[in-house]
Amino acid sequence: GTPLELKCINTIRALAADMVQKANSGHPGAPMGCAPMAHLLWSAASAGGAGRNHSAACPHWWNRDRFVLSNGHACALQYIMLHLSEYEDCSMDQLKAFRQVGSKTPGHPENFLTKGVEVCTGPLGQGISNAVGMAIAAKHLGANYNTPDFPDIISSKTYVICGDGCLQEGISGEACSLAGHLGLGNLIVLYDDNQITIDGSTEISFTEDVNKRYEAYGWQVITVDDVANGLDDLRAAIEEGKKTTDKPTLIKVRTIIGYGSPNKQGKASAHGAPLGASEVEMVKSRLYGMDPMKSFFIDEDVAEYYKQQMAEGEIARAAWEENFAKYKKANPEKAAELQRRFNLELADGVFDTLPTFVYGKDKADSTRKFSEMCLNAVAPKMPELMGGSADLTDSNYTAIKGAGSFQKGTPEGTLISFGVREHAMSAICNGMFSYGGMRPFCATFLQFAGYAMGAIRLSALAKYGVIYIMTHDSIGLGEDGPTHQPVEMLESLRAMPNINVVRPADLNEMAAAYQIALTCVNTPTVICCSRAGVSALEHSSREMAMKGGYTILPEVGEGAPDLILLSTGSEVGRCVDAAKALSEHSIRTRVVSMPCQEIFLEQSEAYRRSILPGNVPTLSVEAGAEHGWYRWSHAQIGMTRFGMSGPLEQLFVKFGFDAENVASKGKELVEFYKNLGGNVPDLNARPSFDSFKGPAH
Amino acid sequence: GTPLELKCINTIRALAADMVQKANSGHPGAPMGCAPMAHLLWSAASAGGAGRNHSAACPHWWNRDRFVLSNGHACALQYIMLHLSEYEDCSMDQLKAFRQVGSKTPGHPENFLTKGVEVCTGPLGQGISNAVGMAIAAKHLGANYNTPDFPDIISSKTYVICGDGCLQEGISGEACSLAGHLGLGNLIVLYDDNQITIDGSTEISFTEDVNKRYEAYGWQVITVDDVANGLDDLRAAIEEGKKTTDKPTLIKVRTIIGYGSPNKQGKASAHGAPLGASEVEMVKSRLYGMDPMKSFFIDEDVAEYYKQQMAEGEIARAAWEENFAKYKKANPEKAAELQRRFNLELADGVFDTLPTFVYGKDKADSTRKFSEMCLNAVAPKMPELMGGSADLTDSNYTAIKGAGSFQKGTPEGTLISFGVREHAMSAICNGMFSYGGMRPFCATFLQFAGYAMGAIRLSALAKYGVIYIMTHDSIGLGEDGPTHQPVEMLESLRAMPNINVVRPADLNEMAAAYQIALTCVNTPTVICCSRAGVSALEHSSREMAMKGGYTILPEVGEGAPDLILLSTGSEVGRCVDAAKALSEHSIRTRVVSMPCQEIFLEQSEAYRRSILPGNVPTLSVEAGAEHGWYRWSHAQIGMTRFGMSGPLEQLFVKFGFDAENVASKGKELVEFYKNLGGNVPDLNARPSFDSFKGPAH
Ligand SMILES: [Ca+2]
Ligand SMILES: [Ca+2]
Repeated sequence: GTPLELKCINTIRALAADMVQKANSGHPGAPMGCAPMAHLLWSAASAGGAGRNHSAACPHWWNRDRFVLSNGHACALQYIMLHLSEYEDCSMDQLKAFRQVGSKTPGHPENFLTKGVEVCTGPLGQGISNAVGMAIAAKHLGANYNTPDFPDIISSKTYVICGDGCLQEGISGEACSLAGHLGLGNLIVLYDDNQITIDGSTEISFTEDVNKRYEAYGWQVITVDDVANGLDDLRAAIEEGKKTTDKPTLIKVRTIIGYGSPNKQGKASAHGAPLGASEVEMVKSRLYGMDPMKSFFIDEDVAEYYKQQMAEGEIARAAWEENFAKYKKANPEKAAELQRRFNLELADGVFDTLPTFVYGKDKADSTRKFSEMCLNAVAPKMPELMGGSADLTDSNYTAIKGAGSFQKGTPEGTLISFGVREHAMSAICNGMFSYGGMRPFCATFLQFAGYAMGAIRLSALAKYGVIYIMTHDSIGLGEDGPTHQPVEMLESLRAMPNINVVRPADLNEMAAAYQIALTCVNTPTVICCSRAGVSALEHSSREMAMKGGYTILPEVGEGAPDLILLSTGSEVGRCVDAAKALSEHSIRTRVVSMPCQEIFLEQSEAYRRSILPGNVPTLSVEAGAEHGWYRWSHAQIGMTRFGMSGPLEQLFVKFGFDAENVASKGKELVEFYKNLGGNVPDLNARPSFDSFKGPAH
Repeated sequence: GTPLELKCINTIRALAADMVQKANSGHPGAPMGCAPMAHLLWSAASAGGAGRNHSAACPHWWNRDRFVLSNGHACALQYIMLHLSEYEDCSMDQLKAFRQVGSKTPGHPENFLTKGVEVCTGPLGQGISNAVGMAIAAKHLGANYNTPDFPDIISSKTYVICGDGCLQEGISGEACSLAGHLGLGNLIVLYDDNQITIDGSTEISFTEDVNKRYEAYGWQVITVDDVANGLDDLRAAIEEGKKTTDKPTLIKVRTIIGYGSPNKQGKASAHGAPLGASEVEMVKSRLYGMDPMKSFFIDEDVAEYYKQQMAEGEIARAAWEENFAKYKKANPEKAAELQRRFNLELADGVFDTLPTFVYGKDKADSTRKFSEMCLNAVAPKMPELMGGSADLTDSNYTAIKGAGSFQKGTPEGTLISFGVREHAMSAICNGMFSYGGMRPFCATFLQFAGYAMGAIRLSALAKYGVIYIMTHDSIGLGEDGPTHQPVEMLESLRAMPNINVVRPADLNEMAAAYQIALTCVNTPTVICCSRAGVSALEHSSREMAMKGGYTILPEVGEGAPDLILLSTGSEVGRCVDAAKALSEHSIRTRVVSMPCQEIFLEQSEAYRRSILPGNVPTLSVEAGAEHGWYRWSHAQIGMTRFGMSGPLEQLFVKFGFDAENVASKGKELVEFYKNLGGNVPDLNARPSFDSFKGPAH
């Protein structure tokens, strides 16, 4: 590199040391080691950089080249680069407020806080897997919207910096194997090979041949042996990565963690704590004579350098805007559709396509079959619906009639064969959503949401409206037994913020589930489906199910009911049968179907109390853990242990979910409170206070 | 193979087809394809088989060579082999009861149901990762207990059959990378390369070079191109695997799914459904003239063959028993310790070593530091305590003073550097526990339990007393922000059956956590630890904390308290401060610390009501999701959204966990019920009925 380039890189390093020192917490080592990579990724092609197109003025420009910092703990680096490129969210004041309450420079990158940050990273392996999703989205959109005259409407590349941790995580192995299979030539990963992890040298746990593994995945692999003393090899490697369009590229860059710190460089001690004030001073004086007393210092020539680099990106964007205006004239429908997709708007009439179940006419079926019907109903109006299953397509029923397979040679297809890779599947969907213009969906057995929990959580945190179709949602899957039967999973997901867990009882409720999922663009939705057939329900209603909970079988006669059966999914029909039997014996029973607690909680208090008065004996019935149901019901029929292998009807009887047991327990509950003199604890008699003092997430 | 061997293999195939057909559900394809592998794994060395030492008479013989069917859906194969080897749990009646309620032949292998089954498999990738744990355990125990005169007290090998799905899952990549690093030469994996997954050809999602990837991991890789027409290549490969003791071996065996089924072999349709009665008949007639009308048929020569094979295992076991008797005489202490370990008994006085916190004398610290003290206190008496962290040793505080590192050249060490591989870490611990003689522990940040959920669930299901040390257990971790701050995780884990979630408030409660964890040998325990310091607590008690919940600050004066603050972990101290402030204003407040709900629920009703009467206004305070707390409290201070990045004290105030807000909300709660005329809903006024009709898990 030129002397100015080295000065730029050293400025980045010193800023990183300053930020962590001022915050008194954070990770200086990786930013200092990775600074040369960031420098080139933020340098224009004319200056020998990656020539990555992006725009501080328009951070959400559709065709920007994405950057993902997969080792999110190095985020000081990302904030510094955004600052040098004049992104407004990363002002100098924000750099100084690193990791503080309310800043736009939190301890790990958060897309919803900081413009210029594409995804939430920090949990290792997620970012690189998100990037695979971004590369898929770009390739797919390009294939569908570019034309021979306009080959670059969507043609962005995705660049990643990642560390050892990201590559040790299984999720990245899953995602990168798939990326190789799909030949994602628009993906370039820079691997910060610093031979250090938190516990010390990689020699203690990570001695595999990473290059060989990535070659085995079908990637182009390039090694850059020394980036501390020269940028040319890295320049050439990035250039090679850009030229290679039929496979993703991994560039292994040998770096030194905490480069420039006389006492800590190359050591794990540089990783996760401030270097210390005197060490920071030494870094600066050692680094080519920077003034050790100046903090947060950016010399004019450095500032000017990065401003110039950004100019090329802005020129590229302006050219793209002009080009897009022409495209719009030549291809008005495509342009409008693309605009609608990036606005996360739905096509007119999507919800009108959703099917209705007519009681007495239609045949009942499994709710997974109903999910298939809904998916196929909306799909023709939703080209943005792209996804698939983790190798369970014919069990999850996620095939879309007429849709093509997304493969290396057919990037226009919308169905993805994720393989048996649940965690990467979810992270890839996060990346696709983040790219824009996409409503990704993915599927597996509900139990195996546990494999993907790390990424599902990030759908919720990062506000990605990913749609999870999770079938085989209870012991009702039968013979596959307890390894496959979810027990705690519904509750595990319900405990998570910003995620809709919907468990529909029939086709009408399934239509509601899809409407909820498609409406909530910033909240992921988990649609839980039965393997086996459910009962036909007389009073089910899409409109009412959209309220999250409603009376699906009213009590007979006037006045408060004697008993409420509160249920979800495949157990609702059994509760209806039980209620009818009870009502014949003068226990006036209401059945409430509650497909989505989260949505029910958003209704008015008056509505909620009209459905669940709180002081009427209430028995909840769900073939899952009883855990959270204590909130809603006085007594529970649920799973208090793991399931077992056997035909589902036998299991439903064994575990008490048959109508007969429900009726018997309902009667017992009513008598219990009669014996207590009718004193039913009012579950709604609770003060409502929200502990959080400040704006919501 | 000889004609008899081929007859044996075809008998296995026909039995598998019969079992699935009779059960009317299951997976015939993999057993039919893998039958030749199973045949050799169940054949004696003298017959050209693997010479795997195991014993139907003594299925838990310590030094048996383990077998893991990682593609657990192929379990018909395992049950058939156990039947042919005369394991009592797999009688012919049991084969006929495949996948039925109450049988010992469930839909996927369950170690706690069927002797001869080592681990629960079915969730893909788990079995092969468990096997890595078994290989670690064997190597470690051998290094510590074998002597020059007795080199084979513990010297078992672990054999695995796995399929494409297992190798696609990220967990297996993590585990196998570590296995290569550790040079586990006692591990031999047979990969059923049938080029089919559920969704069809592996061409649609899995085209990586598996052999090259495993070579990159440092494994020996051998390819067997055709096992359908000859066994010799596979024999030679297994022999090579046995000979290679410095690295694990992967044998890629080209097979045909559903081999022998004229219409389904080689197709995904052979995978997960019965072949159909007529197809089963065709299989039999096609397979070398078996009688198509005979079901569940084992010809005498076949039965005799496998009986003979077992004889060698029994001879080996008898020789081992004799040898062990000599070893016992020569090394009485080692022998006694080994016996104690395999009996899962604790050394005398282990609990006496646990530290006590003396209020007014000792300095408060973080509970992760207290965990370190407890771990180090018990470790000298517990050589069976083996484990480590997923690259967060100095954050999780899981180093044990004086303990060596378990590495290729130092297998006697007890500390494992798992690398950034949470999911495999948990599965490896499951495998180590399953091996016997081990009490594995592992550690990461509580939030990243989400990465390991698939395997943690199997600790619970398979009844493995694995100890999870999960630090940074709330927003109290501070600046790392919401990607690292658990919110839902405590609740997600509490919803799971058979797992103890313990969140201690101080050192005394931490000692209780360790005592609970060590006592519960068939239940995993998650010990949740704070990053930051907690308050010194005057009335904390290990003995009382062992009850799961207890009064840590009694109310002032006589009669029922006006208010109960119910809390856990780092929030208990804040509740104590709040209670003292409230009591000064005549609100007589009790503080209940509830480190473990699961253990509290095991106490007598009288005890539980004495602590939590149910009709006293109760406010729960936990820096996690409020979800399940509705069961225990009238109002909650908890997390209703994700956290944020910032110094922890600021966050605790922001989210309402400071003593001041707790006191204010407590007062509000008391007034709320005063305004309702003192009518406090009794949360304990619920009938107790258990839905499950039958024996517990
Ligand atoms: Ca590293
Ligand atoms: Ca396969």
